[in-house]
Amino acid sequence: MSDAERRARVALSRLAEPGDPRLAGLVAELGAIVVHDHLLAERELGGLQTDVAARLAGMDAEGDLERADRLGLRYVIPGDDDWPTQLDDLAAPPPVQGRGGPPLGLWVRGPLPLAQLTDSVSVVGSRSATTYGAEVAARLSATLARSGCAVVSGAAFGIDQAAHRGALAGEGATVAVLACGADRVYPAAHRSLLDHLGAECAVISELAPGCSPTRLRFLARNRLIAALSRATVVVEAAVRSGALNTANWAGRLNRPVLGVPGPVTSAPSEGVHQLIRAGVATLVTSGEEVLEMVGASGEHLVEVPRGREHARDRLSLRQQQVLDGVPVASPAHADSIARTAGLGLVEVRAALSQLAARGLVDKSERGWRLARDE
Amino acid sequence: MSDAERRARVALSRLAEPGDPRLAGLVAELGAIVVHDHLLAERELGGLQTDVAARLAGMDAEGDLERADRLGLRYVIPGDDDWPTQLDDLAAPPPVQGRGGPPLGLWVRGPLPLAQLTDSVSVVGSRSATTYGAEVAARLSATLARSGCAVVSGAAFGIDQAAHRGALAGEGATVAVLACGADRVYPAAHRSLLDHLGAECAVISELAPGCSPTRLRFLARNRLIAALSRATVVVEAAVRSGALNTANWAGRLNRPVLGVPGPVTSAPSEGVHQLIRAGVATLVTSGEEVLEMVGASGEHLVEVPRGREHARDRLSLRQQQVLDGVPVASPAHADSIARTAGLGLVEVRAALSQLAARGLVDKSERGWRLARDE
Repeated sequence: MSDAERRARVALSRLAEPGDPRLAGLVAELGAIVVHDHLLAERELGGLQTDVAARLAGMDAEGDLERADRLGLRYVIPGDDDWPTQLDDLAAPPPVQGRGGPPLGLWVRGPLPLAQLTDSVSVVGSRSATTYGAEVAARLSATLARSGCAVVSGAAFGIDQAAHRGALAGEGATVAVLACGADRVYPAAHRSLLDHLGAECAVISELAPGCSPTRLRFLARNRLIAALSRATVVVEAAVRSGALNTANWAGRLNRPVLGVPGPVTSAPSEGVHQLIRAGVATLVTSGEEVLEMVGASGEHLVEVPRGREHARDRLSLRQQQVLDGVPVASPAHADSIARTAGLGLVEVRAALSQLAARGLVDKSERGWRLARDE
Repeated sequence: MSDAERRARVALSRLAEPGDPRLAGLVAELGAIVVHDHLLAERELGGLQTDVAARLAGMDAEGDLERADRLGLRYVIPGDDDWPTQLDDLAAPPPVQGRGGPPLGLWVRGPLPLAQLTDSVSVVGSRSATTYGAEVAARLSATLARSGCAVVSGAAFGIDQAAHRGALAGEGATVAVLACGADRVYPAAHRSLLDHLGAECAVISELAPGCSPTRLRFLARNRLIAALSRATVVVEAAVRSGALNTANWAGRLNRPVLGVPGPVTSAPSEGVHQLIRAGVATLVTSGEEVLEMVGASGEHLVEVPRGREHARDRLSLRQQQVLDGVPVASPAHADSIARTAGLGLVEVRAALSQLAARGLVDKSERGWRLARDE
């Protein structure tokens, strides 16, 4: 894309808060360059002029791009080869309420081609995760990563951090989407994680370098996590947590919402259980099940666990009938078992010997009984 | 009902295994007395004669009833005031496959009127329950019992035992349905539990006194648990557990199947998660949610947990906009917040003071920031 287009988008992203639907609408209609020129000329435009007036003074898109370059950040915009076109769904009708517009562009720190996010799943959840939640998020993310599915999350404590850890352990791609500039480290304790992602994968934000996180920016950021990925997995989310906001975005974008259950006694699982009960989320228990949901038809097939194969499955119908007549508790003699099973005594005696050979029944002086309490 | 009818049903229940669909069909068509007379006369009847021949010799319905009376058992049959008519659903078309017929009668030990089971829920699950599963089953059953909903279960270790314990703690009715004679104690370790239920509530079986448990009888018993109750709750069930058999019966009878989730790392929860994923069971997390599912419309209403009410909910729109512009991490001055929020400086200063008064923002020399990391 042209440098003018890129500069105009950088400038506009400084003028309005992320996801401003008015700005997104104007840019879609008139183009970023025209909208930018109008606002620079202090012309009123869809009610934006008043709101952005205070910010116009400090605009320096050229300087922003130069500084970003020195920080190792690039700015990817629609039309670039690397633009993740799945974000365009944020503009699709019917219009999504609130801060729903597509981003003007993405600041990216790290070598990962964003095209790789076409096959990605977001893994989100509570900051105050339990060890159970963190462990499950990490395992699930490792499975996704190993199968070539990138992981998308935030950079918070708890599930976000566990998701990245798991994906890295699975030697796959993982991406943090921030609610502040992609150059910033928030929370500060995650410096080494973010530096690692910035060196090996990608740290992404629609906010210009240096921008601080605010609640509004977290909410806007959540729509990007949902829109970048094929599905959103929620692992532990208390009622009213930010992860549920991401799940809602995924739902509005018609992306599958998946929920990992937990103990009903655990508050961090409450929000997930509510999503499942409300029919918003599908229950998943493993990365394999997630892959099955997002894969192209037949691409990832999960074998439903069927429990250990029972010796009983390999019996003839007659043997099964006899076995069903053998007492669980106190032993019975063959004639009594024959009455219970409704079969002839000779037949029953033969079957009992066959069952004993398979270790399914035991014989004592008092008669036959099942070998195991099942 | 007539003594002849009662004696015929006792005799027939001795002749065939529980739930034999051929016998159930013949009894529905010809009446128990006629079927009994035919079989006694060694006349062939729907293929039954061969199977029951070995048992005909030992028949003594009169003696059975007398012995049962001495043991404190009564035999309830269709047409009796106390007959739980919901069991008749087992005969309803479309015919249920396999051992699906309604019972010929129920042997009952204990004072509980079976009519009370019209408002009952079965709570079933794994014998090798975890402490989590047992605790949740007990709590849920206590809630049911306290609200006047009877609990139905088996008498096994694990979830069955926990369900009865919970219902008794909730000072409600609870009933054990056995796969052996209602006079027998199986497992032996549950003598005091079964004696207590026999003295205060009810122990039920379609098998004549003295009968031993077999696998076939457990499977047949499961249909009674499902058919007696309005809904079946599964708390922990490994893949291929007997509890899933009960759940399948409930589903075939169009009774709601409810599943309590657990950690995805816990094998005893796997079967429940599969039921929920397959759309067979609805996820429930509490007795209140169970009551909501089975209650008459509006009878039991559950308040969806909404998390603690946020101070933010009580703010004006303007105050919220300002709050959303306050940095989470490093503080910012009012003019910077005004730019972020897209609002005038005077307005923002006023709002910041109001927000500080509510404890939502903190002011330092370096500026304003959110009071709490949310």
